[in-house]
Order: sequence, then C-alpha cells, then structure tokens
Amino acid sequence: MDEITVTLPDGSELTVEEDATVEDVAYEIGTGLGRDTVAGVIDGELVDAQTPIHDGAYVEIVTESSEEYLDVLRHSAAHVFAQALLRLYPEAKLTIGPWTDDGFYYDVHNVDLDDTALAQIEDEAQEIIAEDIPIERVTHSRSEAFEIYQDNRFKREILETEAAGEEPVSFYEQAEFKDLCKGPHVDSTGEIGAFKLLSISSAYWRGEEDNESLTRVHGTAFESESELESFLERREKAKERDHRKIGQELDLFSVPDHSPGCVHYHPNGMTIRRELEEYVRNKNDELGYEEVWTPELNKAELWKPTGHYENFTEQGEMFNWEQDDTEYGLKPMNCANHAYIYDRDTHSYRDLPIRFSEFGTCYRNEQSGELSGLLRVRGFTQDDGHAFIRPDQIRGEIIDAIQVIEEIYGHLDLEVVYKLETRGDNAIGSEEIWTNATDALRDSLESEDLDYDVEAGEAAFYGPKIGINAKDALDREWTIGTVQLDFNIPKRLGLTYIGEDNEEHRPVMIHRALLGSFERFMGVIIEHFNGRFPLWLAPEQIRILPITDDHIEYAETIKEALGSFRVTVEDRSWTVGKKIQAAHDDRVPYMLIIGDDEQAAGTVSVRDRKEQERNDVDIKAFRRRLERERDEKHVEPDIQRAMESSSAD
Amino acid sequence: MDEITVTLPDGSELTVEEDATVEDVAYEIGTGLGRDTVAGVIDGELVDAQTPIHDGAYVEIVTESSEEYLDVLRHSAAHVFAQALLRLYPEAKLTIGPWTDDGFYYDVHNVDLDDTALAQIEDEAQEIIAEDIPIERVTHSRSEAFEIYQDNRFKREILETEAAGEEPVSFYEQAEFKDLCKGPHVDSTGEIGAFKLLSISSAYWRGEEDNESLTRVHGTAFESESELESFLERREKAKERDHRKIGQELDLFSVPDHSPGCVHYHPNGMTIRRELEEYVRNKNDELGYEEVWTPELNKAELWKPTGHYENFTEQGEMFNWEQDDTEYGLKPMNCANHAYIYDRDTHSYRDLPIRFSEFGTCYRNEQSGELSGLLRVRGFTQDDGHAFIRPDQIRGEIIDAIQVIEEIYGHLDLEVVYKLETRGDNAIGSEEIWTNATDALRDSLESEDLDYDVEAGEAAFYGPKIGINAKDALDREWTIGTVQLDFNIPKRLGLTYIGEDNEEHRPVMIHRALLGSFERFMGVIIEHFNGRFPLWLAPEQIRILPITDDHIEYAETIKEALGSFRVTVEDRSWTVGKKIQAAHDDRVPYMLIIGDDEQAAGTVSVRDRKEQERNDVDIKAFRRRLERERDEKHVEPDIQRAMESSSAD
Repeated sequence: MDEITVTLPDGSELTVEEDATVEDVAYEIGTGLGRDTVAGVIDGELVDAQTPIHDGAYVEIVTESSEEYLDVLRHSAAHVFAQALLRLYPEAKLTIGPWTDDGFYYDVHNVDLDDTALAQIEDEAQEIIAEDIPIERVTHSRSEAFEIYQDNRFKREILETEAAGEEPVSFYEQAEFKDLCKGPHVDSTGEIGAFKLLSISSAYWRGEEDNESLTRVHGTAFESESELESFLERREKAKERDHRKIGQELDLFSVPDHSPGCVHYHPNGMTIRRELEEYVRNKNDELGYEEVWTPELNKAELWKPTGHYENFTEQGEMFNWEQDDTEYGLKPMNCANHAYIYDRDTHSYRDLPIRFSEFGTCYRNEQSGELSGLLRVRGFTQDDGHAFIRPDQIRGEIIDAIQVIEEIYGHLDLEVVYKLETRGDNAIGSEEIWTNATDALRDSLESEDLDYDVEAGEAAFYGPKIGINAKDALDREWTIGTVQLDFNIPKRLGLTYIGEDNEEHRPVMIHRALLGSFERFMGVIIEHFNGRFPLWLAPEQIRILPITDDHIEYAETIKEALGSFRVTVEDRSWTVGKKIQAAHDDRVPYMLIIGDDEQAAGTVSVRDRKEQERNDVDIKAFRRRLERERDEKHVEPDIQRAMESSSAD
Repeated sequence: MDEITVTLPDGSELTVEEDATVEDVAYEIGTGLGRDTVAGVIDGELVDAQTPIHDGAYVEIVTESSEEYLDVLRHSAAHVFAQALLRLYPEAKLTIGPWTDDGFYYDVHNVDLDDTALAQIEDEAQEIIAEDIPIERVTHSRSEAFEIYQDNRFKREILETEAAGEEPVSFYEQAEFKDLCKGPHVDSTGEIGAFKLLSISSAYWRGEEDNESLTRVHGTAFESESELESFLERREKAKERDHRKIGQELDLFSVPDHSPGCVHYHPNGMTIRRELEEYVRNKNDELGYEEVWTPELNKAELWKPTGHYENFTEQGEMFNWEQDDTEYGLKPMNCANHAYIYDRDTHSYRDLPIRFSEFGTCYRNEQSGELSGLLRVRGFTQDDGHAFIRPDQIRGEIIDAIQVIEEIYGHLDLEVVYKLETRGDNAIGSEEIWTNATDALRDSLESEDLDYDVEAGEAAFYGPKIGINAKDALDREWTIGTVQLDFNIPKRLGLTYIGEDNEEHRPVMIHRALLGSFERFMGVIIEHFNGRFPLWLAPEQIRILPITDDHIEYAETIKEALGSFRVTVEDRSWTVGKKIQAAHDDRVPYMLIIGDDEQAAGTVSVRDRKEQERNDVDIKAFRRRLERERDEKHVEPDIQRAMESSSAD
C-alpha cells in the first residue's frame, strides 16, 4: 500500500498509510492520544475522527482539551435539541443545525414554538443528556437516505446539493433519533455538561428571502454548569451594553428604514468618528501613507480583472446595475482603485514602498435580515491602506503596522490577539515566496515579542495574513484590523516596478486596516466602554451644572475658559440632583458643579464619572490637566489622578 | 380695454393696456427709452421687444447699454453664421443656435467642416456684417412653416415640440436667410462689431447619445474689435491654465475611463483637498455647525416627499436602479438626509438654529459628453450645510455665512460677486414671508457693505437666494458657493419646532455651501492660481536642492529641521540648473539650495517662485517665518517679505 505524508501542528511531518484516518494518525503519534481522540481538523476543517486523510494535509487531533472540543460538543447539543423537539413535536421538519461561536442553532419548519414550548423542549433535552445515550456514526445508501427523508424536502435538497454524490451517506444516531450529518460528535449525550436554549428567531431556508420561513432556535452548551453561568452573565452584560441601545441613548447614530444597513452619523457619533479619523490619519502620515480619494461609483468592469466582480456578483453581494447601456457598481473595496493609481506611472525599486491610504466608503449588498446596527452593515468606511512593496520590504512594513496597532488598541484598552494564517491548498504563487512571506510575518510578530496562534492552511489563496482580533471588556473577540499580503492582484493587474537590474518585477501588495471600518470599530468600542468613552473620544467632554439659574452666567465664563473642549452648560431649571443624574446617564466624563461658593472663589467643583469629587479647583490648572489627559488619550477620566499630577507642572 | 400692472427693476409699478408689448412699456416710461429698446426681459426671460406682457410681470427694458444686449448681439451673430454657412453649403441642415456665456454655437447637420471651411465661412459672415442687412421678425402660418422646413426634420421637430401650438409662427429674416426663432435680435447685421468663429466640436441632437450626431460650430461676437481681442487673449491664457493640463503636470487627480465623471484624487490633489476640508471644518465648528455623515446609498423613496425624485429622474439625472425588489438611488444632494436627522427629535424654539454640516458625496448622472475634468463631473463632495432656523434668525445666519465667505475667498485672492435672486411667478409660500426673507438677505448684504446685483424674479420657487460667484485671475466668474433659503422642504416634510407659544411652527431651512464642492472649487483655483498654489495649499511646499550628492546628507538634516512642512529632497543626479528648472515646472513655492558654503555655515539659500533669492538664511528663522505665511494663508510665496518681517519676532 502507498504511503502519504501529513504535517502536524508543530511543523513536523508524519508518514502513514494511504487509507489512514484522523484517528490512525493520532495512534501513530501515541496510543494515549489515539484513545483520547474526539475529532480532527484537516486543512482547517473540523471532521470526524474516522475521516480519511490525504497526502500533504495539515492534520490536528482534537481531544477534550482542544479548543475545538467545544464546537464538537455544541454540534452534539444541536442534535440533542433536535431529538427532544421531535419527541414533543413529531411533525416538525429539521433543516440545518450547526454550531456557532457561542453555541448552536437549529432551523426547523412546520412547528410553532414559544417560550413555554422552549422550556418543555429544554427539560426533555436535559432528560436525554441524563440518559447518557451513545452517539454513533452510521451510514445508509443514497436510496435509503431518500427513503428516510421522504417527508422532509429540506434534507432531500441537502442530499442533492451538499451531499450530492456521497455514497454511502453519513448519519449520526442516538437512540430513536438519527440525523443526516458528517459529524464530528462527542461519544455520548452525557458528555454535554451544561445545556441551555436561549431564544427563537426567524430565518429563511438557505438564507434566501424568497424561500420558506423557518424557526431558528438558538441554544448553547458547555462542559460545565459554571462555564454556562459565566457565559449567561456575560450575555446579560452584553445586552445592557448593546451598541444600538447606547447609540440611541447617546444620540450617536441611526440606521433608518430609508437606508437599510447604511449608518447615519448624528453629531455625537460623528464627533467620535472625527476623532478616530484624525488619530488614524496622523498615524498614516507618520507611516508614510499618502492619502487618496476614489469614488464609490465606478463602471463594473473595474472589478473584472481582479476577479472581485465574479466573486461578489455570484453571491449577490455587490450593488451593481445597468443604466444608459453601462453596468455600474458601487465599490465593494478600495483596492482596485488604488492599484489603478499605482499603475498610472512607472516606479523604480527606489520609490517603493508606495503606500496609499483612504477613508474609503464601500457598499456590499448584505441580506437585509442579517443587518444589525453598526456591526452588520451595507455601507462602511474603511480606514484602508495599500502598500506596494518589494518582497524584501515585507518585514519592515509589517512591524510598522503592528506597532501602530499595538499603540492604538492600547489607547483603547483593547487586548490584541494575533493569528498567523498560513498557506492552504489553493494558494497561488510559488512555495518559495509563500515561505519567505510567512517567515517575514512570523519574524515580525516574534521580534515584537507578541503571542500568536498559527492557523495552518487558513490563509486566503492570495497570500498569508496576520489576523488581528481585539478582546473587549467582556472578553469577546472581534475581528477588526487586518494585515494581509496579496500576490494575486499585482499579478492579475500586471503591476510592476523597475528593479536595480533594470528589469520589470512584481510588487507585493499589503492590504492593511487599523480599525477595519468606522462602523464596526465604533460598534465594538461602544460596547467595550459601555458608552463611557475616554475623554478624547467623548462627544460631550464636560458638562457645567449651575446650582441655580443665577449661576448660569458664571458657568458661561467657565465654558469660555475651557477653550477647545466640548463643553455644555446645563441650563434646564432642574434640581442639582436631577442635573447630576442626567449627566451621569449621558456618561459625561466630567461635571463641573457651580454654586455661590465656587462663584465667589472663582473656582469649580469637579466630579468625574467614577463619582469622585474635588472642590476648589482652579479652572486653569484643571484645563491643563485635562488637556494632558485628552492628548495622552487616557482611558478612564479620573479627577484625583489628573489633579495629583499637578505637582509636576 | 382692461389694464394690467407690471413691476419695473426699481420696484415701481406701471399700469398699461392689456395688449401692451415690451416696447409699449418702454415708451410708457419715456419716449427716448422706447426708441432705444432692443429687447426686453420678462420674468427673467430675454424676449423680443414686440412680445406682449402679462399682468404681474417683472419687466426690464434692454437697450444697447444693458448687460443683456451682448446676448442679443450674439444671438444675431449665430444667425449670421447660419446665413454664411448656407450660402457656402446649401445642403447643410440647421438645428439649434443659441447664445452662450461667451459667444454662441450652432448645431448643424449634413455638412462636413474643417478649419479651412471655418475660415471661409467666417469671411462670408464678415461680408454679411459689412452688408449691414436689416434683421426683421416675420410670421408664417404653421402650414407655411412646415412647408419651409420640408427638407429639415430637425426644425419640423421643433415646430412640434417647443413651438407646438404657436400660430402664427415667429421667424427672423435677413435678406435671403430666414430662421425659425422667437428672438430677440439686433436691428441689423452691421451692429455686430466683431465676429469670430472659434472651434468645431460634435454634439447629439437634443443631447441624446442615441440621436443623430451633429457638428457644433462655436463662435463669439462683441460690440467692438478691442473687446474681441481681449477676450481671445484671456481665452489663450485660460487654455494654458486648463486645470486638466495642470492636474496632469502636478499629478493632482485623474478621471479614468472606468469612472466617467468621478474624480480620483492622487496624493498631491488629496493634500489640497485635505487642507480645504480642514479649513472649512474649522469654520463650520466656529459657526456652530454640527458635522454629520449620511450614506450615498439610500432607497429612492427618500427623495419622493421632497419632490427631488420626480425632478431628477425626469431628467435622467439620478443614479437609481432596482435590485432585490427595492429601488435604490445614490444621493443627488444631502438635504433629505439632513432633514431626516433634524426630524428625529422634537426641537424647541430655544434650540434653534440647529445646523448640520457634511462633506457629503453626491452623484448625478450628467451626460457623458458633457463631462470635463473637475468642472463637469458626476461625483462630487459638497461642503454642505443646512441650518434649520426661526424666520427671525435669517439675518444673523446670513451675515455669519457672508463673513466667512468673504474671509475664505479673500485668502484665495478671489473677488466675490453677489446676486440677490428674488421672488418669481411660481413661488410657494406667502408674500409676507418672501418679503421678510428677501429683506433679510438684502439687509445682510448692505450691513456688510457689499455690492450686489438684484436678479428680479430669478429665485427658485422655494425661496430667495444670494448667489455667490467668484471672479478669478482671468476675470471669469464662477458659481461656487450658495446661500439659499428654502420654505419648501420644511413644508413638504412637515418639519416643526415648538414655539414660545407651545405651538408647532415651521422652521426655515438654509442650504449653504462655502466652496460648493471640492471638485469644482479645486478646478477653479487650479486655473486661478495657474497651479501656483499658496504655501498652505501647495502639495509640495519646499524642495531642497543639494548641489551635489555630497550635500544630500545635510539636505536631510534641513528637511528634519523643517518639521511639519511638506518637504522633499531632490536626490536625482542632475545639474543644479536642471533641478531648479524641475522645481520651477512643479511650481514649488520655495527651493532651498544647498552647497559647500551653506553646509559649512549651517544655513540655506532660499529661492521663491518669483525667482527672488536670499542667501545665508538661518533655518530656524526661515521655518518660523514660513509657519506664519502658512498659518496666515498668504497668497503668494515671497522670501523677501517673509524674511523682512523677521525683525518683528
């Protein structure tokens, strides 16, 4: 029998027999690992332990201690839900039931569920878990499979699409329940330590609005009850911090019916956007990016040579239309326009890197059902950047980008999580250039002493990438910025530079975004800060509260003395208590309370958002301290700290 | 016979008989004026002196000393051209031949013209002028008119469209030549003091690309040869300053084939745009405008209540399309989105004015044949502003706007020309509100001691307006900014505020742009400055020219010492002469020339764009002077003036 070679996560290679499965590979590594194997990851895809591997595959073994184990557990939890559902509602039709980042869902048809029903199904599911039923993979011939689903056209459609040609067909079975499924699953329902059904929403079959409306049941599962509890706690907190709710409370933005998925920034939200824009713009200037501007509207032909047109229109994700015999489109990304600007002229190796930045507004036709606040949008403005570089410049360019990302995210108290995505099967470009480029990315991360995960084989076909996630105050990870190498566009568009040898060479293109988009980034930091923005970002930085109307005039002189800060004077005829409460609700970093004493002494009383107070504050000293807090971008307003640093100046 | 009443330019009213013509009105005013009457203006439209007037009309008498006389003269010149053409090319078919801002054109069919032909036609036209042929209005019945044009389907189409229902039909006749025409014209071809054919271009019948291609002959005419000469001189200068040519020379922008009419700002052009944006943004902040951001993409329904949808789609000027059963559109203006943001909340009379500004990108589907550089575009970013105010706030708001416009245009050495456009026939809103509003506009101009022309009856139906033109270095007027009152949108959208009386009131809306759009404004100032931008706007502010490569290192330290200025070091191995020439061609405000002497003394030699030189300049002093020149926005770099002011600090 022939042998094949696979690569393991530590980079080592292993030779096994041609028909070996994931489990066989595990046993080859060690008997203990073989015994503990729950599932495997082949080229980035989570699969059943019995899945045969192929030559050249990246293989990872999943055990109970792997990160992926939770996905497997939740996949089984989805089956437990489905089993419980059918026990109570035999007429229900199952469609698809995948795991997700925070649990699982199952889309079902022909059943009408409410919260009471959900509670009953959950009780039944807990029974099934208590029964500790073994979960087993079984196979059926295609004709048997169609027989099994004679009453379920959704599963029959899956047999004819995703599972087309599969023979025999893979099912997973637990007692009386059986589901068309490629796995993987845990060994037994009893392994699900904690199970919870969360909510009901509606969905469309295949996500297409013209198709049948389905009921989507969301749930989650963990290995232990304590993990579930802390998840539910975080979820409750996240709900309170929902950026759509805070966005309305602070009048930051809206997404009106006349522009689905397209954000309207109100003055308060625009203030934050402007501060972020100015910050990134300065960083871009420092990094040698030259700012450009390119139009949203272009002929659709612009995106044909890069391959984007085909990709985007295939998925209906582009806004494109025919008018006056021309096909127009709204730019779904800025790279084609930037490549055009690069290509307007010839460039010498000495001119590289050539870097363009743009606050470029892009539009993508996301399903209207998927839209949500700032996090799922159709229109978004990227803080985009494209660098055209020589291959030997990769490392320097990446280090610059990473340093700025560390700085920006640090100023916002966000932890950065790096992922190095490496070459997959469908990669274009020579192995040599991939190896060099991936080494350059790895070196950059290591020379900056940064931790990172390797996601082997996960890179897009056109180049390796450093994925940049931000971990927020609730420990949630968000994909925001990116540093992506691209060998494809320069090749497809025939971009060149003249080398020292006087020959034409192909530049490497870097796609780089620090924030990602204003929309997504603002959605993240609104929730991260719970609307309590650092001084430099707060739309209203200081509110002056005159104790009575007699103090309004003095309040106005104080406002004047605060110069360029964003200050308002509270002139509603309310009690001081009510004024303080309103400023608190509006999350204003600093309140200045002004009464007879302050007016007589020419001072102010300051209260910060943590309810610390300081009286008899000299306004000039206060302003100086606050300018420092703003310019140094401190995260949390703190009047004690601010004034204590006063001895320094 | 009944009597009717008309209003004259001085505001006085005159009562005349019901069937009175423009000429009758002139005679009623005075016999001399009656004799001198060439034509008239009724409600803003230039008409023949024999045109009957109607009750309530605004009537202006045109004599040889009126501004409009030149239009009449050029209209007659178009007829002279047509007569000359037909003498030489009897087979040519005439279509339309209007006067324009700087001459006239005539679109003709079935004739193939080149420069030689043009010269011959011009000779013939000069003959016709020398013959001093009387031009007379004659009429024909409709059937005669169709008979006359049995060989000209273009004129027949005009008879069935613009001239539909006219009976008898108006023609103008000079000797053997006769043209379907409503006039007005001068009395005789001899009145045309100077005549010149300028160029040939192509056009489409009715401007529609699907129609017949026509030959457009451009010409001009003046009362005197000297006026023609100075016009031709200015035209030659303007050609040299063509912003498309300079845009390419300085690599400012491009309008590629993949985005017709949509400007791509290259780094140099974007630098200018950023400077302008920052300048306007600061002014907006000072004026109390709150910046917002609204998406380009909206559902088309957004513009239906305002009436814009009907207007724009009727003329095919909107980018709109159907996708996924929804009609989308790109915003042709920002006002609907701003009105929506205003309307998100209730407002008290105490909160007004509420002012929104946006650097808002709009798209309009202009004919592709009309597109040209930055001045005729499809995509443009307005420095838009909308203020929602109480009627009693109009004056204050307008004065603020005018003061800022005076300041901005002053910094750019542009003369501002104001036009007050007043109520026309189709106005909406009560006479009282128009009178008050127009008085407020007039008062504002007068309290600022500004000259202005009144364009009676010229206002759009929705409110009176101050038209703002900029007069450039070649004495050309450009319509750029605007201050426009609007009673219509608040009414149509039902916008309100709560008055002191606790009742709902209607705010007035002001549309206000300082620059108009970045595209148009930049097109104007590129030509105005001939690409020689003031220091604060120049993409490259200083170029350092090392005499030999040995001085490059010192040049870099000088660059470092110049801080935030945009500085480059010329490191090509050229002679100093060639380096100076290149910097000159690139219109760099200041060159610093660095050789052994400078390096030894630690100084620089400075050369400005006017080729003034100054040696032994201390770099710190130079930087301080230049910072002042930049921050005070001086128009012309001047090293002598800059350094002479040094004694002051």
